[in-house]
Amino acid sequence: MVITFLSDFGVEDDFAGTCHGVIKRLAPEADVIHITHGIEATSILQGAMVLANTLPYMPLGIHLAIVDPDVGTPRRAVVIRTGDGRLLVGPDNGLLVPAAEVVGGVDSVNEITNRAYALEPVSATFHGRDVFSPAAAHLALGVDPAELGEAIDPGSLVPLEFPQPEIGSRRIRATCLYVDRFGNIQLNLTARDLEPLGIVPGTNVEIALPVDRFYAVAARTFADARPGDTILYEDAYQNIAVAISRGNAAQTFNVRAGTEVRLWAE
Amino acid sequence: MVITFLSDFGVEDDFAGTCHGVIKRLAPEADVIHITHGIEATSILQGAMVLANTLPYMPLGIHLAIVDPDVGTPRRAVVIRTGDGRLLVGPDNGLLVPAAEVVGGVDSVNEITNRAYALEPVSATFHGRDVFSPAAAHLALGVDPAELGEAIDPGSLVPLEFPQPEIGSRRIRATCLYVDRFGNIQLNLTARDLEPLGIVPGTNVEIALPVDRFYAVAARTFADARPGDTILYEDAYQNIAVAISRGNAAQTFNVRAGTEVRLWAE
Amino acid sequence: MVITFLSDFGVEDDFAGTCHGVIKRLAPEADVIHITHGIEATSILQGAMVLANTLPYMPLGIHLAIVDPDVGTPRRAVVIRTGDGRLLVGPDNGLLVPAAEVVGGVDSVNEITNRAYALEPVSATFHGRDVFSPAAAHLALGVDPAELGEAIDPGSLVPLEFPQPEIGSRRIRATCLYVDRFGNIQLNLTARDLEPLGIVPGTNVEIALPVDRFYAVAARTFADARPGDTILYEDAYQNIAVAISRGNAAQTFNVRAGTEVRLWAE
Repeated sequence: MVITFLSDFGVEDDFAGTCHGVIKRLAPEADVIHITHGIEATSILQGAMVLANTLPYMPLGIHLAIVDPDVGTPRRAVVIRTGDGRLLVGPDNGLLVPAAEVVGGVDSVNEITNRAYALEPVSATFHGRDVFSPAAAHLALGVDPAELGEAIDPGSLVPLEFPQPEIGSRRIRATCLYVDRFGNIQLNLTARDLEPLGIVPGTNVEIALPVDRFYAVAARTFADARPGDTILYEDAYQNIAVAISRGNAAQTFNVRAGTEVRLWAE
Repeated sequence: MVITFLSDFGVEDDFAGTCHGVIKRLAPEADVIHITHGIEATSILQGAMVLANTLPYMPLGIHLAIVDPDVGTPRRAVVIRTGDGRLLVGPDNGLLVPAAEVVGGVDSVNEITNRAYALEPVSATFHGRDVFSPAAAHLALGVDPAELGEAIDPGSLVPLEFPQPEIGSRRIRATCLYVDRFGNIQLNLTARDLEPLGIVPGTNVEIALPVDRFYAVAARTFADARPGDTILYEDAYQNIAVAISRGNAAQTFNVRAGTEVRLWAE
Repeated sequence: MVITFLSDFGVEDDFAGTCHGVIKRLAPEADVIHITHGIEATSILQGAMVLANTLPYMPLGIHLAIVDPDVGTPRRAVVIRTGDGRLLVGPDNGLLVPAAEVVGGVDSVNEITNRAYALEPVSATFHGRDVFSPAAAHLALGVDPAELGEAIDPGSLVPLEFPQPEIGSRRIRATCLYVDRFGNIQLNLTARDLEPLGIVPGTNVEIALPVDRFYAVAARTFADARPGDTILYEDAYQNIAVAISRGNAAQTFNVRAGTEVRLWAE
């Protein structure tokens, strides 16, 4: 059984490796795939987006996700069964919901409360190790979600707070959601959002940041632009993004997650 | 057979991946768990602490650990059998000893000298690849530690140099051992060290750094504090640490491993 | 079957993890070894060097390598069969050729064009996920390279652009190829290049950077030097490198990949 694992634990500390060890002690045959542990610390939004982007590419299995700034509070721990038969394990803080929606929706939810499936004692600050990893391991062993705790109403799941863009007839006010290693600036927009403005490949686009303004050309891919050109394109996860061909857009324009980005056809 | 692997190799370079490859060439069935490779470069102290913290959570197996600033000198390479039946492989520089102590103590030690179980030629600077990884792989295959080299006196193992706190009746002089990704400041203290000062959850604590001074409240967990509050708490590995709820204490107070931290009940 | 994986994807984003997931969906039995994903973004040179250095230590198998700044252009995707029976998968941009040369040379090459072995749709910017990982997975399942696409002339492979040193009778003009986590400065030189200058262990060497000048001693290993000494040595991959014993040479001398380094016997 595959267990995928995404978190904001980073790889400098032992947190992700310790969870991996806990899983393998309980479920020696489980095959762990680390999606990433590079989610920005405590960023539920980023974690939820990356999980939703990547889950369709993962083998069917158990999907452990931990971005848990409220560990130690009464926030719930949950396992969600999705329409396509996956089991998502993590905190009930919005992290899991968008991913569930792209793989068949939320079929059922159980709260994780049964201490028989946790490590003892449960620490106050590391439920990844003491609650979530053991739960994922037990599910991989075939334990039914109902044994982890009571079924709860899917409608009671905490929704993700997602920054909505303002789509005008001539202008869009968007937000940078994410900057990747290559400096590509992912916006809270899809191709459909650009349609009202008539932006298609080849359109020149003006982009305004809080303290800068520049021009980009809408393009299908980096290959349509010369090195150094700034492009607006649909990335591999169907999000609209800004990039500099062979360059680093986020560094050049000093953009990071949360930066407001306005744009319009020139 | 599980081989866990901890080092200061980082993940930017190939060092950890190369060792992984060497292990799998020799022992294709071995299951490698990367605890972390983010130990601060050459920090034996940090490596020893993280290994001791995490080993109890790992499946019984072979436990490879490499923080080896003296590679190429006559420092010994060793395999330690622990009281609970684990085999720890690494340099004899203090790295392995605290971990052995938490899993049943040192049962026996063999020096690794038999070149039949090393790669040829053995480089002068990368014994992780040429000596330690092959030794771990052969142990996973069932080779007896005695075949790797002569038994040596456990009492001859190099001890770890650990900074001892000064516990006064009113004041503690401690040292920051470690800063994690979330900015939590781990001290060389346990809950027992706080008892003489009467610090219990709820106590206000004054904390002095070389060039700063601030207040914290002793707490059971982040959840006991409001966002922005500074707390003194017992972390998930039973070490006393300083954190800012929803914030980054190490950045805020400019603390890193080695910083002196004095504290007393207000 | 083992699939090794090297890229410039980093570990902050999901890219490497997503490829891992794609591989395991198609080839659940494949055993993935991450050599590193820390190759400097878009640095084909660094990727090619690290792959060539490490491939001999990897189990025989499928070897996926992705540093692909020209994704989306007509650059070819290829699978190379090597003299020792490995299959190398990646873009045809010089990345794979030096590695093939150290494991028996290029035996045959097939272009990867058959969309039946790719994900649909193939994105314009993430062929790692949509083309290369599925190709590697299918090869691990036993698919013949010829099924991925037509055989092409090995002589048509794009060669790696490698900075050549100038070896004079008294002076060498070299280039820093790589700086590792420990600050060791790897040069585009091998021990043979030092012979004309009569540099042997013990020789004092003067080293000039664009804006600095310092002295080093040729040494067999760090252990031959006192802490703080600067040494010139042959590293574990048979490259000549500059290091400071117990220190960080690259930080001390402000060197990074691409810096010109001149040296001569004192």
